[in-house]
Amino acid sequence: MAKTSVLTPQGDDFPRWYQDLISKAELADNGPVRGTMVIRPYGYGLWERMQQEMDARIKAAGAQNAYFPLLIPQSYLTREAEHVEGFAPELAVVTHGGGKELEEPAVVRPTSESIVNEYFSKWVQSYRDLPLLVNQWANVVRWELRPRVFLRTTEFLWQEGHTAHATYEEARDYAARIHREVYADFLVNVLGIDVVLGRKTPRERFAGAINTLTLEGMMRDGKALQLGTSHELGTNFARAFQTEYLSRTGTRELVWQTSWGVSTRMVGGLIMTHGDDAGLRVPPRLASVQVVVMAIKGDEAVARVQEIGRALRDAGLRVHVDDRADIPFGRRAVDWELKGVPVRIEVGPRDLAAGTAMLARRIPGGKEPVALDSLAATLPAILEEDQALLLRESRERRESATVDVHTAEEAAEAALAGGWARVPWAVLGTAGEARLAERGVSVRCLVAEDGSVPAEDDAPGSLAVVARAY
Amino acid sequence: MAKTSVLTPQGDDFPRWYQDLISKAELADNGPVRGTMVIRPYGYGLWERMQQEMDARIKAAGAQNAYFPLLIPQSYLTREAEHVEGFAPELAVVTHGGGKELEEPAVVRPTSESIVNEYFSKWVQSYRDLPLLVNQWANVVRWELRPRVFLRTTEFLWQEGHTAHATYEEARDYAARIHREVYADFLVNVLGIDVVLGRKTPRERFAGAINTLTLEGMMRDGKALQLGTSHELGTNFARAFQTEYLSRTGTRELVWQTSWGVSTRMVGGLIMTHGDDAGLRVPPRLASVQVVVMAIKGDEAVARVQEIGRALRDAGLRVHVDDRADIPFGRRAVDWELKGVPVRIEVGPRDLAAGTAMLARRIPGGKEPVALDSLAATLPAILEEDQALLLRESRERRESATVDVHTAEEAAEAALAGGWARVPWAVLGTAGEARLAERGVSVRCLVAEDGSVPAEDDAPGSLAVVARAY
Repeated sequence: MAKTSVLTPQGDDFPRWYQDLISKAELADNGPVRGTMVIRPYGYGLWERMQQEMDARIKAAGAQNAYFPLLIPQSYLTREAEHVEGFAPELAVVTHGGGKELEEPAVVRPTSESIVNEYFSKWVQSYRDLPLLVNQWANVVRWELRPRVFLRTTEFLWQEGHTAHATYEEARDYAARIHREVYADFLVNVLGIDVVLGRKTPRERFAGAINTLTLEGMMRDGKALQLGTSHELGTNFARAFQTEYLSRTGTRELVWQTSWGVSTRMVGGLIMTHGDDAGLRVPPRLASVQVVVMAIKGDEAVARVQEIGRALRDAGLRVHVDDRADIPFGRRAVDWELKGVPVRIEVGPRDLAAGTAMLARRIPGGKEPVALDSLAATLPAILEEDQALLLRESRERRESATVDVHTAEEAAEAALAGGWARVPWAVLGTAGEARLAERGVSVRCLVAEDGSVPAEDDAPGSLAVVARAY
Repeated sequence: MAKTSVLTPQGDDFPRWYQDLISKAELADNGPVRGTMVIRPYGYGLWERMQQEMDARIKAAGAQNAYFPLLIPQSYLTREAEHVEGFAPELAVVTHGGGKELEEPAVVRPTSESIVNEYFSKWVQSYRDLPLLVNQWANVVRWELRPRVFLRTTEFLWQEGHTAHATYEEARDYAARIHREVYADFLVNVLGIDVVLGRKTPRERFAGAINTLTLEGMMRDGKALQLGTSHELGTNFARAFQTEYLSRTGTRELVWQTSWGVSTRMVGGLIMTHGDDAGLRVPPRLASVQVVVMAIKGDEAVARVQEIGRALRDAGLRVHVDDRADIPFGRRAVDWELKGVPVRIEVGPRDLAAGTAMLARRIPGGKEPVALDSLAATLPAILEEDQALLLRESRERRESATVDVHTAEEAAEAALAGGWARVPWAVLGTAGEARLAERGVSVRCLVAEDGSVPAEDDAPGSLAVVARAY
């Protein structure tokens, strides 16, 4: 179908392919203020489905949604020293409100730990109030010097979870639970991205955290993308904001905290993991449109596609009916390929006479006739097969493009050649990590030899996963 | 139950009752930047349910969600003259980003017509691209000098719909459709608020609109609250942003537009419509918790409430299980009354022995024993009865507190006495409206004698609905 390429091929220029796809598939536009973006309906539909799936998992983990203000007094951010150092260069500052200069400037939230703690310190009195498990869906602003749509934008949409616990162990376990049960489960089983779960090095940690857990995906160009993080904050913010509770024994104790987030960056990760030269390929479990039923031409086809669409909707599928018979069929088919809808059912006059349609599969590719009355029964299995295929491709790509090496130099070479390397952290160390950084290569995370997440920064036997990253 | 009042009674001081309720029912806190608010989990749960119900109706009306940037170049707002005049005094301005002063300051969106039109003018080329029906869920900032939580806040959450059509008639009809099928349907049938649908006078119109449709609710103190608006924008923004399309006959034409929004203000409207001296009363169709199953005390009760909760959930009800037997029962019961959960099922050791529980109804009040095995069958009808009761109360209150009068003076007196008045618009007129405004009274909307919405500003026979307002 899309042999006449509407996109720059990935092999020619991957960044340009990415920009082409975002524009041609109508996912997003650049915003007028540098680094901002307009998320168009089809792109927002991907994010909405991500929200639904994530929100259900977050609630299953016991957190409730709430909303904290966009504007934070500048002084709040300065209370936690590392936090302000990390975020100060990226802040957008409101200096005027209601026609007057403000007494104290307000920053547009870059993240909400500071303002959340101001309120947690009011809400938490006794051990009975713990754990306090809160999440918010919100926009945040971090001034970006080298913006790229969805991946690094001055404003982005995300969820940020914030929790307070009575003990270190409870906070640690909750951060790990979010990492695995919410984020990994979603990324692997819905987005079909075979992420590596690991622990950030101190250099790559969130500003104000004592531990950051991460999920790293390999994009089709071999670079890494951080898709989500879950932080143990220790008592850093609790100390700065005096977030204390009265224990069972009557003592006043600082709470132990976590925070964790994923963002619209995941849309970029989805594109760069599954997209190909014909466009996006959306995993069926995510897709807001799993099946598009297209009328090729003719009045009868136009009438029948509505009927077929209803039957498939009744079977529990997410269906769009394309009956725009006045627009050339080829143009519409290319457009649905670009948008990555997993299955197209193409209905024309000749097919109807035979009681069949063409079934085109975007994910493995290929097209074959199918009996109309068997569609509702066969499509669910086809979609699950496509879902599994995308995950398998993602895993195989990562496995084949990752090498185990023994020196920092070998790791750098592998990363610069467009793959990932695993190298013993004991060999690399903080000094080796700094030297890699000078060459544009970073330690994405530390993993244990058995693939689990190391419990400490210098756990014996840890491997550093090294790559170039977005 | 709540005879020992935890709230200032409504009759003593309605504004203080409102503040007490918001605080004691843990709905929201004031934010640190003047006029902002923190929406706490229980309050946010109300908003989330409003979003779900509204979003389904918006999608049924054909609009798709999208997202436009928070930050708008200041120059965009100035392109539509009335629009900038209306919003300039309320703007929050970002002057610094990423550590530098910006070349052009950006405003934090107070509403998005300007930035939406910038993109509509790129997306709309031909008549085939119309109608373009877009909605966004977002936060907006309007600097408030006299803030009140939920009702008038510097930052609030809302949805804003933006559409472009080929003709005046299509735009007019779509604004009316949103007004009736989306907003009125939701406010009446889910929130149980018997709103009056009408047309704003030119004085009260949205800045930049040619017509504003409104929904006005009467609060328990007799004041009016505007709960939603749907605007016809004519070609005002299209002209300012050159949003044009190529017609079927090959001519270039300006699009006709609408915009429409409802906000977290609805949470305030809900409280002031249904709340009483014991707290909030949440309409069952909205409630995120329709039924709370409480263990009074005893290990057996604690074990059984989980089981009862599961059974009721399986029956399709939204259920919370309160098994905190270590907190005094009376305190918890008062708390659920404050939060307005429609039904409490109270389970104690003696009840269990008899196979019964106490069923307490928040909305009509009262308590009676009920057989545990009949709950799943009887509760749905009870909840629908409560839903209807709230709407009936709202309608009766409005009808009994509204008078038909013949002069501007009578209208002013009725409003200042804490009710609404209907007075012929031909009697009042623009001059009369201005005089009412000096006394803190406004024309909430114009309605036709048969209750329909007038098609023109000066449609013969129109009545002005006059009241004090939030």
